[in-house]
Amino acid sequence: MTAHLSVTAYDVALAGLLRCAEPPVPAPLRDFVSGAGAELAWEAIRHRAAPPEVMCVVSPRLGEQTPAELESAALLDLSRADAAGARIVGPQHPEWPAECWQALDWTRAYDDCPHMAGPLALYCRGLPLPEGPERCVSVVGSRAATSYGARVAGGIAADIAGAGRVVVSGAAFGIDAAAHRGALHVASGSGVVRDDGARDAAGVTIAVLSCGIDRSYPAAHRGLIDAVAVGGTVVTEYPPGFTPMRHRFLVRNRLIAALGGATVVVEAGRRSGSLNTATTAANLGRQVCAVPGPVTSALSLGCHDLVRDGRAGLVTGWADIAALIDPLAPGPATHRPGTRPADGLDLITSRVHDALPRRGEITVDDVVREVALPVPDVLGALAVLHTTGLARRKDGRWSRAAPAPARHA
Amino acid sequence: MTAHLSVTAYDVALAGLLRCAEPPVPAPLRDFVSGAGAELAWEAIRHRAAPPEVMCVVSPRLGEQTPAELESAALLDLSRADAAGARIVGPQHPEWPAECWQALDWTRAYDDCPHMAGPLALYCRGLPLPEGPERCVSVVGSRAATSYGARVAGGIAADIAGAGRVVVSGAAFGIDAAAHRGALHVASGSGVVRDDGARDAAGVTIAVLSCGIDRSYPAAHRGLIDAVAVGGTVVTEYPPGFTPMRHRFLVRNRLIAALGGATVVVEAGRRSGSLNTATTAANLGRQVCAVPGPVTSALSLGCHDLVRDGRAGLVTGWADIAALIDPLAPGPATHRPGTRPADGLDLITSRVHDALPRRGEITVDDVVREVALPVPDVLGALAVLHTTGLARRKDGRWSRAAPAPARHA
Repeated sequence: MTAHLSVTAYDVALAGLLRCAEPPVPAPLRDFVSGAGAELAWEAIRHRAAPPEVMCVVSPRLGEQTPAELESAALLDLSRADAAGARIVGPQHPEWPAECWQALDWTRAYDDCPHMAGPLALYCRGLPLPEGPERCVSVVGSRAATSYGARVAGGIAADIAGAGRVVVSGAAFGIDAAAHRGALHVASGSGVVRDDGARDAAGVTIAVLSCGIDRSYPAAHRGLIDAVAVGGTVVTEYPPGFTPMRHRFLVRNRLIAALGGATVVVEAGRRSGSLNTATTAANLGRQVCAVPGPVTSALSLGCHDLVRDGRAGLVTGWADIAALIDPLAPGPATHRPGTRPADGLDLITSRVHDALPRRGEITVDDVVREVALPVPDVLGALAVLHTTGLARRKDGRWSRAAPAPARHA
Repeated sequence: MTAHLSVTAYDVALAGLLRCAEPPVPAPLRDFVSGAGAELAWEAIRHRAAPPEVMCVVSPRLGEQTPAELESAALLDLSRADAAGARIVGPQHPEWPAECWQALDWTRAYDDCPHMAGPLALYCRGLPLPEGPERCVSVVGSRAATSYGARVAGGIAADIAGAGRVVVSGAAFGIDAAAHRGALHVASGSGVVRDDGARDAAGVTIAVLSCGIDRSYPAAHRGLIDAVAVGGTVVTEYPPGFTPMRHRFLVRNRLIAALGGATVVVEAGRRSGSLNTATTAANLGRQVCAVPGPVTSALSLGCHDLVRDGRAGLVTGWADIAALIDPLAPGPATHRPGTRPADGLDLITSRVHDALPRRGEITVDDVVREVALPVPDVLGALAVLHTTGLARRKDGRWSRAAPAPARHA
């Protein structure tokens, strides 16, 4: 089975190391691998020759297996990953998203877990990972999304992908699925335009799993996850065969939070796991955004809490997100210029405009009496209205002019 | 007609002064009245004996009328107001809402109108005005409200009234009407409980008109405005017979903004006049609140702009508004405690809990192998789970316990 599998000693070491402790990697193991390198660390561990504090954290998983059995198990993982179309990616591989992890203080990721750490390696299926978090936006939310939430998530994801960015999510029901699909829909329509005008190697969306790369969770999303592996990348730090568990969702969420330069919560009840992802993103120094919804919807409560408490910026679409990620970029047009010409008038001019009749004409004295303003103010206002085409003068008498239709302006 | 009308010289002076310049009162007139007092100022003006800068701003309205004609016109206004069930209220009357105007810098109310001023007097119909802005919340929004916006405005207004506060609005279609009706509905159900446990003289809602007190605008709201005059107060600074005009809406809005300790925008398109009220409230130093809605709704764009740009606090109901008005008051429960017992577990305990089978039992060694954690960590987690009733031990083997239903806890 492994005869046709071309793997390096480095790949085997990564696979072995991912097997010997439940993520997040315990600090002694993390420090040992980081100091000795993956291959030496793996050799030491499978021969029970690593320092005692390392052996302490790995021995529960090693059990009674011999060094040869451990090597075989690692090879089997790579073989199962290969059969699923996946490769293993570690810090020495070019596509390792080092910039996503750089400068992150993982110990701050969770309020109640100071031993949190980044991934030792990732199983990846599909296109190469994007280089840095500034290329990615994480879109998360409730599994029990409303049709409103799903529609908004899909639309935002499509706009993110359309702008050449990558949508990161968790392949769950509801918002996650809508986000992946929204991005893939754009990809299938070839609507993706990279910022630099070219297409790069990365896809439009990343699904981060809380189980082995050879599994689909939820099972109903097997087709969706396969589609993500074509139009983007499926990643996990769990070895093949590993099943999703409650704590693995929490641990997985830190990767969603870290991969995106911003995390957008589209719909979330007060107990939604996506609020956990939002908190993690904030703890890691990432921008958190929340999409509002009807105050009558329980599934928008969490989003409203985030905004009200100052933990997230309110966003209504990609333009708002882009403005938060890069405050120097052109933001959304908050105050669109009025198209009704009388809208921009100051109070006195507006008052004079109101006094002018639509039919018939009146004298300046009539206007003065009507608006109860000094003559110079009235004459000044009439001049403004005349110049802007809002008032008409005929034989010294004044009337309101019908402005030309704006569409021809 | 005036035979049965009991009026003081002060009332006549106020009515005369309200007639002789379009609100907002021009600064020379305001300063003259404030220095000389209303009665002396009115005598001087109607005899053309006021200082030139005052005569300059009042002469357009005085026209050619004699002092006696001017006095008659003021009396006629009071008579028409009386026929409409209204009285005139000025600074010397006990119900003048001095606290609402105190410490306000009216010149800042509008960005483009440095000559803005407070009202010289008000025509009032119905119950006495409340003492200060801390008793009032202004609720404004689009005339073309959606059913969502109307429902939310009505609900928030009912809660404001139910808490013994007064809902201030403008009697317009849409949000205004829903707010008045929501407050009146509570009043009719006797659901109003004042903060101090007693009922005070003020009603549950105030409608500020942009026309004479004897008029109803919009005409379709005649019944609503009459109902406000029973359960609350209708007010205006315009003399009887004055018609609503575009600039009068803008000028009127400053009173809505000033009367409320907070102004809540429920639904507003990007061009809604209620955004003008919100800006005025902010300029006057009042708290501005905005209710979010679907990002797909054009009528929530203005609210989302306000929140996103930091010009309003996001509120989803009266509890949020109350917390913004009085930050020391108990706020809304943002983080409701979970009712599922396994929710509050730390990551390690959660991991051990996940490893326990729902059916059958496993040994501690089984758990250690499954969770890949050192034995002491596993034993500690099992102890926590056992204590909280989430794990069961039988003959040294462990299983997951079904927690008792929370409703009996």
